[in-house]
Amino acid sequence: MPRRHRMLRRIVMETEPLLMLPGPVPVPERVRLAMARQAINHRSAEFGAVYADCVRCLKPTFGTENDIVIISGSGTAGMEAAVANFARGRKIACLSNGKFGERLFDISKRYGEPTQLASAWGTPLPLEDLAGSLEAGAEVVTLVHNETSAGILNPAAAVGRLCRKHDALFIMDGVTSIGGDVVEADRWGVDVAIVGSQKCLAAPAGLAAVSISERAMERIADERPYYLDLAAYRKNAKKDPMETPYTPAVPLFLALREAGLLIEEEGIESRVERHHRLARAARAAVDAWGLSLFPSTDEHHGYSNTVTAVRLPEGTTDADLRGHVKKLGVIIAGGQDHLKGTIFRVGHMGAVGAPELLATFGALQAALGRLGCRLDGDGVAAAAAHLA
Amino acid sequence: MPRRHRMLRRIVMETEPLLMLPGPVPVPERVRLAMARQAINHRSAEFGAVYADCVRCLKPTFGTENDIVIISGSGTAGMEAAVANFARGRKIACLSNGKFGERLFDISKRYGEPTQLASAWGTPLPLEDLAGSLEAGAEVVTLVHNETSAGILNPAAAVGRLCRKHDALFIMDGVTSIGGDVVEADRWGVDVAIVGSQKCLAAPAGLAAVSISERAMERIADERPYYLDLAAYRKNAKKDPMETPYTPAVPLFLALREAGLLIEEEGIESRVERHHRLARAARAAVDAWGLSLFPSTDEHHGYSNTVTAVRLPEGTTDADLRGHVKKLGVIIAGGQDHLKGTIFRVGHMGAVGAPELLATFGALQAALGRLGCRLDGDGVAAAAAHLA
Repeated sequence: MPRRHRMLRRIVMETEPLLMLPGPVPVPERVRLAMARQAINHRSAEFGAVYADCVRCLKPTFGTENDIVIISGSGTAGMEAAVANFARGRKIACLSNGKFGERLFDISKRYGEPTQLASAWGTPLPLEDLAGSLEAGAEVVTLVHNETSAGILNPAAAVGRLCRKHDALFIMDGVTSIGGDVVEADRWGVDVAIVGSQKCLAAPAGLAAVSISERAMERIADERPYYLDLAAYRKNAKKDPMETPYTPAVPLFLALREAGLLIEEEGIESRVERHHRLARAARAAVDAWGLSLFPSTDEHHGYSNTVTAVRLPEGTTDADLRGHVKKLGVIIAGGQDHLKGTIFRVGHMGAVGAPELLATFGALQAALGRLGCRLDGDGVAAAAAHLA
Repeated sequence: MPRRHRMLRRIVMETEPLLMLPGPVPVPERVRLAMARQAINHRSAEFGAVYADCVRCLKPTFGTENDIVIISGSGTAGMEAAVANFARGRKIACLSNGKFGERLFDISKRYGEPTQLASAWGTPLPLEDLAGSLEAGAEVVTLVHNETSAGILNPAAAVGRLCRKHDALFIMDGVTSIGGDVVEADRWGVDVAIVGSQKCLAAPAGLAAVSISERAMERIADERPYYLDLAAYRKNAKKDPMETPYTPAVPLFLALREAGLLIEEEGIESRVERHHRLARAARAAVDAWGLSLFPSTDEHHGYSNTVTAVRLPEGTTDADLRGHVKKLGVIIAGGQDHLKGTIFRVGHMGAVGAPELLATFGALQAALGRLGCRLDGDGVAAAAAHLA
C-alpha cells in the first residue's frame, strides 16, 4: 500500500491536468519512463522477454490460460481482428446498449451477417432475444462487457452460458473492464477477449491485447486480413524468443511491461477491489447530491466500476460544467452521440486512487454550486466515507 | 551542423548497442524523452497541434502537397491500408525484386487481382512488362522504392510516368526512402506513398504515415476495412483540431513530432545529402576490401542510399561475422529468406552520421580480419575519406 500510494500522489502533484476520462488515463511515471530508453531490435531475445512479461502479467487480468497476443493498434484494431478472424462469413449476434456495442455491429457488417440485439443505451440487454438468435443459428456472439458510453456493466457470465449451450463463439470487448473489474474469461466461456492499453491497465494508448481460445483457433477463417491476421500473431508469439509478425511499437511494449509489473505487484484482486471502492465512492457522491446515475440496472446488469455516468441536472449545460471542472485542473467526459449534453462521465480506472477521486468530486461539487444547482448534500464527504 | 553532430555523438556514447539495421534505428534522446510526459487527451487542441506538426514536417520528406494521415500501426499496416482502400477488386501490377515487393503482392492477393512483375532479388525490375500490364488493363501499380532486403533503389520516377500515361493509380512503399533519400511524390505522380516511423525518420517504431492524392480519393473503394479506413482518417484529419478516427498511440505521435522538428531543423536537402554521403562511404569501404555489393544496377536502378547489402566473402559465415561485430557493440543485419547466409546488410539511415559509420566499418573490418578474410585494403580509411 505505501508504494502504490506514493505513485498515486505523484500523479496529483504534476502540473498536467488530471485525466479522469474513460481512457486515456494518467500513466504512472515508472511506466512512462520505460519508453525513454534507446530503441531495441524487435527480433531479439530482449524484446521477446518484454513481450513474454506483458503476456504473463496480463493473463490474471483476463482470467485466462489461453494464448494472448498483442497488436500494435488501438482497442478498435483488436475488435476488428476478433471479428475478421473468427466471424467472417458467419451469422453474428451483436448485443448492444451503447456506442461500443454499435461499433462492434458496424465492424461485423463488414465481415459477416450480423443481427443487432439492441436496447436503448444504458438499459439492460435483450438476453431473451439472444437465446432466440442462437436457436436460429447465430454462430458468433459479440458483447461489450463494460459499456463506457452509458456507464453500464453487462452480464458476461450469462452471455457465456448461452454461447456454450449453443456452441457459439463468444467475442468479448473487455477494453474497459480487464485490469479494473472482475473478468474470468475462461470460467465464463469467453473465446476471444480484447483489452486496450490506455484504460484500466494504465499504460499509454496504442496496443490491444487479444486472448484466443483453442476452440476459436479451430474455427479461424481461411481468408484473413494481413496486418490483423491473428493466426500470424499467434504463430510468432509461439517462437522463442517471442515475436510479432510485423514491426511492433516497441516503446509501448516497454511501457506495457512496466504497467503489467505494477499490476502484478498490486495483485489483481486488490486492484479490482480498489476500482470497486472508487466506484462506490463516486456513486455515493452522486447520491448525496441528489443527482441520478444514467444507466438502469436489473438482476443481471450493474453499474460500471470503471466509469460513472450521471445525468446532467436541469439548467446545467455540459460545456459549463466540464469547463468549470477543467479550470480546476480536472478533465472529465461528456456524453457521446445522442447523449451529448445529457450526461457527464467520470472515469476512475487504472492507477488512480482516493486523491484523484476526491479532487474530481471536489471540482464537480464546486462547479455545480457555481452553476446554481441546488445539491441535497455533501458528495465529497460521502465519497470520502467510502475511501478511508 | 554543430547541433546535429552533438546529437549524433550522444548516440555513440550510450551503453546500448549501436543499431545499424535497416530499421529500427537509433532514436535521438530528444525524441525518446518526448514520450516520457504524462498522457494527453487525444480529442484536444493539444493533440491536434501535435498531429499537425507531424504532417507539416513530413510533407517535404514525401515531396508532396497531398494530405498525409498517420496510422497507429507498422509500415505494413500502411501498405495494407493503401491496397485495401485503393486497389480492392482491381487489377494490380506488383513490381517486385525483393522481400517487400513480394509482401505487397501477398497483400494485394487478399484484396484484388494482382499480377507479380518480378525479377530476382536485387536485380533491375522488368519495366517492359509493366508497360504491357498497363496496356492490358492494370488499374493500380505497386512499387517498393527502396528495397532493403536487397539494397537496391528502384526507379520511382519512371514507374510514375508509365502510370500516368495509362491513368493507373501509383502506390509507392517509401518506408525506407522517405526522410533519407530523394522522394518527389508529386513530381513523380505517386498517388499513395507510405513511410514507417522507425526508419529514415529516426522515430520509434509503431506509426505509418500515408499521403493520398485527390485522384486516389476519387477512386477509393466503397467497401473498406474498419481500422484501416483511409477515408475515415482523412475526414478526421480535416477536423479542427485534427483527430484520428480511433485512439492514436499518443506517445509515438509526440516522438514523431520531435523527430519531424529535427528534420525541419536539419533541412531535408541536407539530410538527404548526409544519407548519400554515408552510402558513398559504405560502398567505398566494401570496394576497398575487394568485396562485392549485392545488387545489380543499370541505367534505371541504383544502390540504396539507406542500406548497403554486401555478399559474404567465401569461407565466412553470417553467424560468425555478425557475432564478432556484435561483440564490438554494433548490430548489423543478415540476409532475409533465401539470402540468409549469403549477404550482410548495414543500415545507415535516420540520425546516424560519421561516428556511427566508422564504428560499424571498424567493427566489420576487425571481424573480417579475425575470421581470416584476406582484404585488399583499408575500408575504414576509404570510408573516412568520404566522410571528412
